[in-house]
Amino acid sequence: MKVVEVLRMNGGDGDISYANNSLVQRKVILMTKPITDQAISDLYCSLFPETLCIADLGCSSGANTFLVVSELVKIVEKERKKHNLQSPEYYFRFNDLPGNDFNAIFRSLGEFEQNLKKQIGEGLGPCFFSGVAGSFYTRLFPSKSLHFVHSSYSLMWLSQVPNLIEKNKGNIYMASLSPPSVIKAYYKQYQKDFSIFLKYRSEELMKGGKMVLTFLGRESEDPSSKECCYIWELLSMALNELVLEGLIEEEKVDSFNIPQYTPSQGEVKYIVEKEGSFTIKKLETTRVHWNNASNNIENINNDGYNVSRCMRAVAEPLLVSQFDPKLIDLVFQKYEEIVSECMAKEKTEFINVTVSLTKKK
Amino acid sequence: MKVVEVLRMNGGDGDISYANNSLVQRKVILMTKPITDQAISDLYCSLFPETLCIADLGCSSGANTFLVVSELVKIVEKERKKHNLQSPEYYFRFNDLPGNDFNAIFRSLGEFEQNLKKQIGEGLGPCFFSGVAGSFYTRLFPSKSLHFVHSSYSLMWLSQVPNLIEKNKGNIYMASLSPPSVIKAYYKQYQKDFSIFLKYRSEELMKGGKMVLTFLGRESEDPSSKECCYIWELLSMALNELVLEGLIEEEKVDSFNIPQYTPSQGEVKYIVEKEGSFTIKKLETTRVHWNNASNNIENINNDGYNVSRCMRAVAEPLLVSQFDPKLIDLVFQKYEEIVSECMAKEKTEFINVTVSLTKKK
Repeated sequence: MKVVEVLRMNGGDGDISYANNSLVQRKVILMTKPITDQAISDLYCSLFPETLCIADLGCSSGANTFLVVSELVKIVEKERKKHNLQSPEYYFRFNDLPGNDFNAIFRSLGEFEQNLKKQIGEGLGPCFFSGVAGSFYTRLFPSKSLHFVHSSYSLMWLSQVPNLIEKNKGNIYMASLSPPSVIKAYYKQYQKDFSIFLKYRSEELMKGGKMVLTFLGRESEDPSSKECCYIWELLSMALNELVLEGLIEEEKVDSFNIPQYTPSQGEVKYIVEKEGSFTIKKLETTRVHWNNASNNIENINNDGYNVSRCMRAVAEPLLVSQFDPKLIDLVFQKYEEIVSECMAKEKTEFINVTVSLTKKK
Repeated sequence: MKVVEVLRMNGGDGDISYANNSLVQRKVILMTKPITDQAISDLYCSLFPETLCIADLGCSSGANTFLVVSELVKIVEKERKKHNLQSPEYYFRFNDLPGNDFNAIFRSLGEFEQNLKKQIGEGLGPCFFSGVAGSFYTRLFPSKSLHFVHSSYSLMWLSQVPNLIEKNKGNIYMASLSPPSVIKAYYKQYQKDFSIFLKYRSEELMKGGKMVLTFLGRESEDPSSKECCYIWELLSMALNELVLEGLIEEEKVDSFNIPQYTPSQGEVKYIVEKEGSFTIKKLETTRVHWNNASNNIENINNDGYNVSRCMRAVAEPLLVSQFDPKLIDLVFQKYEEIVSECMAKEKTEFINVTVSLTKKK
């Protein structure tokens, strides 16, 4: 599986689209807003650039893409008024993998811009937007062309499925019962990917540039702790049920692995310091309950359904690269049942790690 | 009709797509290549920028989008080798209206880049690409952020259908029989649009920046001369036949007008000088026979079919905004017959105007 070709959020604005099933991600953007606000405000006030270049990496498509933009603009506008300055030119660059629905972003931009102008009022500087398709584990932007990088709920995705020397039998992710070599391979891949990410961004950011990165992570220092693997373990269970029913070959599940790693604060700190281009201004962990997944008033009490929808919007393109697309409805039906049962019994939360970084020189 | 929402080339890569029916446009890019080559070479050698920022306005999607990029890169690489310099970072910005199929561009970029690297060989600098959706009759890029602007077969499109004080009865474009007020209104709109285009681009280009613009035009100074209106007049004829057959209301044809203007060299010169931001380095007219429209070996002798396909790829989204989409097949069937007949009798050519401009200060 080539992650860069396969991974994407479900496009469009239909029932199973990411756009309509990404409330958790929205909640997380809002929860981590104080850190983002502080960083953009510090950045703006240290440079007062005439053109402010901001990249959102893993922007996906839908309301969340625009939420980030408008929140950043509001903070900068507040600061520039405080300092009695003209509004800068804003230059936003939306990045995601080539399979992302950029057309959807571009077709909504006109309306978004009008609303933004209404919200901010007179004096807002011109806003420019561009789409950049590609993996953030490669170079994406010209050298020293960015002031600020934002990324939310994207950096836990790896550039590839780790090279495993042992089978990850019965699991589609590292799980408490996975062989230690599997867990080691996942961490190794993460370390490599995140280091490369930091290196490339440091080339693209101007001196004094900043980044705020939020991703799924964990509180425990144990990489196979339940808190991070649970949501995928439940999906393994759903797939394994279909194996038992003879609808999916066992081998297909054994050889399928989700290219994701959810690091601890300690791991993040270690990699940032080892790579050396950035200093850490802030490193924080937050929690968000799975039941934040509802987009939809009428389904607000149907948490299993909503979590299942949310995970489907994220994971469907990966799953159809390995399993018969006709089975996907059934997989997520099973998954919904399993998730509902588990949410009824215990407190189920996503753990988020947010790190605020400044480029050293 | 809001041109910015309606005008686009047919997307995707199917039978009626622009990607598969744009050989005339390709031919024109190649015909005008000497002017483009000279301009990019002069530009590069006057500035030797470390990052070379190039925008293609009205890039559409398909092979033509990439043809422009690779031809420009080849010239710059030749020059930088001659001067014993490292290859610059290339930064290409693809612009078109929000309805353009940017997803198709982004999904082809990986392969294109690989081929480009193979063609150019060792030492090619990193290439960055971004998509920018919006009308080039608005600001699209941050101030002073571009070195070079290229646009081929786009600038004849107006920002809106001209405000007509008299009906353009039986025609969908200015024709020899249109009332003088119609022709005047078309020219007025063009003058306004092209002036704004020049003003905005002059804000976006750096000092010494250059533009090469090619568009459908005419040789005659008479704006209603047959050479520029003919291809649309034939489409009017096809539509009028359907009016006679009772399939289309006469009023629908009378009130539909194609937002396009094909200027003469004299008009272009007048507007550029009046606007004042650019000096003209070169102004040229070329001709391309309609029978260059074939993409497809088996249809190479079926010129009417090919021209009809080519015009359909360009005009279909406009037509379906006014006429029943179910009639479009029939319209282009009629059109094909009319075009074939006319091509058998006379020499039918598109006239192109190319202008090479340098920003004054």
